[in-house]
Order: sequence, then C-alpha cells, then structure tokens
Amino acid sequence: MAESTYTVKGMTCGHCVRSVTEEVSEIEGVTNVSVDLPTGAVTVTSAREVGTEQVRAAVEEAGYELTA
Amino acid sequence: MAESTYTVKGMTCGHCVRSVTEEVSEIEGVTNVSVDLPTGAVTVTSAREVGTEQVRAAVEEAGYELTA
Repeated sequence: MAESTYTVKGMTCGHCVRSVTEEVSEIEGVTNVSVDLPTGAVTVTSAREVGTEQVRAAVEEAGYELTA
Repeated sequence: MAESTYTVKGMTCGHCVRSVTEEVSEIEGVTNVSVDLPTGAVTVTSAREVGTEQVRAAVEEAGYELTA
C-alpha cells in the first residue's frame, strides 16, 4: 500500500474536487483519492506505487495543474 | 419571446456555470441560458415569461443562490 500527497492548483468548488477525484481514481492501482479543497492537497492511496507523471496527467485531464 | 437577467451568487468555475445552465434550461419554455461567470449574470431567454420563483428554484437545485 502506498500513499502520496500532491498539491493541485485551480480547484474552486466541489465540482472541481469531483473532477479531480474521478480522473485520479481511474489510474490503475489507485484505491482511494482524498481531496482537501482549501489547501488543494490530493492524497492518493494505491495498491502499488503510482508515478507522479500519471497523477499529473490525470489532474491535467481534469483541467487542473499539479504544483507539487 | 422574453429575456430576463438574474444574478447568481456562488459560481466559481465552469462546472458551476454548467450546473446552473443545465437546471435553468430544464424550465419549460426556456430556449436559451447564458451565464457570465465573473459577474454571476444569468440571462434566460424563453418563449413565454418565466416566473422568478421558477428560476430561483432551478438555481437552488443546482446549489447556488439567486440574489437579484
């Protein structure tokens, strides 16, 4: 089990949270995605290590930007 | 043909605009809904006059507030 936290820029409301959660959840091996809207913190739990580039791609697909 | 402009509070992103547009578009007789995100202006075009209370209900259904 792996857990990583990223920071996503540009989320402003619950719809944004849902979009990011949905896209990141689609990454193979991801078992949980938790988003804190005020800080932009996105915590990804996965069965195996997930590459940052995969997370970045999913976040961008949702229309947002990974900053850290 | 009638056109009325309302002000909606709380929309922060394109998803919000889409939610409001979808709900207001479902009101019978509405032929066009135009939303300006920065100002919150929602312009409703309809075949016949639509009551403010119907628009208010649709906006609240979407999760926002009609302020004027």
